[in-house]
Amino acid sequence: MSKFYGIGTGPGDSSLLTIKAVNTLKELDILYTPEPKKEGKSLALSIVQEYLKEDLEIKQRHFPMSFDDLEKTKAWDEIAVEIEKDVKNGKNVGFVTLGDPMIYSTYVYLLERVRDKVEVETIPGISSFSNIASNQNFPLVMDREPLIVVPCTTDESKLDYALENYSSIVLMKVYKNFKEIIEKIKKNNLLDHAILVSNSSLNEEKVYTNLADLDKDKISYFSTILINKEEKRVG
Amino acid sequence: MSKFYGIGTGPGDSSLLTIKAVNTLKELDILYTPEPKKEGKSLALSIVQEYLKEDLEIKQRHFPMSFDDLEKTKAWDEIAVEIEKDVKNGKNVGFVTLGDPMIYSTYVYLLERVRDKVEVETIPGISSFSNIASNQNFPLVMDREPLIVVPCTTDESKLDYALENYSSIVLMKVYKNFKEIIEKIKKNNLLDHAILVSNSSLNEEKVYTNLADLDKDKISYFSTILINKEEKRVG
Repeated sequence: MSKFYGIGTGPGDSSLLTIKAVNTLKELDILYTPEPKKEGKSLALSIVQEYLKEDLEIKQRHFPMSFDDLEKTKAWDEIAVEIEKDVKNGKNVGFVTLGDPMIYSTYVYLLERVRDKVEVETIPGISSFSNIASNQNFPLVMDREPLIVVPCTTDESKLDYALENYSSIVLMKVYKNFKEIIEKIKKNNLLDHAILVSNSSLNEEKVYTNLADLDKDKISYFSTILINKEEKRVG
Repeated sequence: MSKFYGIGTGPGDSSLLTIKAVNTLKELDILYTPEPKKEGKSLALSIVQEYLKEDLEIKQRHFPMSFDDLEKTKAWDEIAVEIEKDVKNGKNVGFVTLGDPMIYSTYVYLLERVRDKVEVETIPGISSFSNIASNQNFPLVMDREPLIVVPCTTDESKLDYALENYSSIVLMKVYKNFKEIIEKIKKNNLLDHAILVSNSSLNEEKVYTNLADLDKDKISYFSTILINKEEKRVG
């Protein structure tokens, strides 16, 4: 029976796909790929390119990143209808998404629209924070401690609570209020227990282990900070 | 140059290893595997078995799960010394660990002991909660919400705070005070937004989508509850 497959590509390095993801990609008739910009190149597509069969039909679709909810909803509705039609026509249809499909991925908006209409199988991927921790040999969380992952676009009070109350913290989307975040980390005496990585597993990857001396006003869109009070890192 | 490799096997299904993990396993001279019980079979070893070369030397080592910290520390010290010696003798040495090496894994205790002495490379793995979410098509977290992962062996106040204040919650190690945890989920009106999975990705996997009707006193050691206030699941 034909299916819709949501496939996590992991953070960027093609060798971080799972065997299951690679085997599934090889069975697809059609692959949908998300593009943040019209006519832009899909990062998710470039990660999986080497595993695709030659006659695979690729449908690059634009996913608006704007704050206009109506524009977004309309795009997702249209792509979901297209996917449903392809699966009902007997095709195995895939969609690739960066990192893990269930953790901060727009794949969920497609999933919600098609899961009652066609069979769906989701294949997990390595999330960016997990990859950064391994690459830096930086233990994230142990024993009885909670792990909290906070997008820095959340309410400031939630960010403050996390920094004050948890030992193991992942801060995502730090690009927006980067300077203030560093100040908050400093205020909580966590600078020595934090690392910052931009563009993890891509060619432009940058690792900062000494956040105290980090004299930058801006930081890449794909930047993540890992904090573990049990770990000590000074540049 | 020879290295020590910490390799995440993912949750249990051999096809959930990454390409990088499989390629690394093939290059090893020696593989250390953890065994919770003396003479017991290593689950991590059985997951990777199909990828190992025939003449690989396997060193099964006992990792005590007791509450006796001295016994544990002694075991880790001894294994770390053994690994260091093997790497300094020019061997590529691996260690396999369930899930992701940086998230609640005893691998970290070895890493801390050897990372200043030999070169170490850690390869991430799919964590159990990420796998459960994908298998159940259960979105974990979206947009601006934090994600909190709580081992239920933590302080009760931390568990309560998480249930009262976050939308996206992973509860691990729920076997111990299972009945009380279900009561707490009920009290916070989260029963309809939760699923429980035991032995994810193993043959004995069990999925419970209706926690209200779950009439059990005990639950398997490998049990995890996913909660997302934005998701509604009733049996």
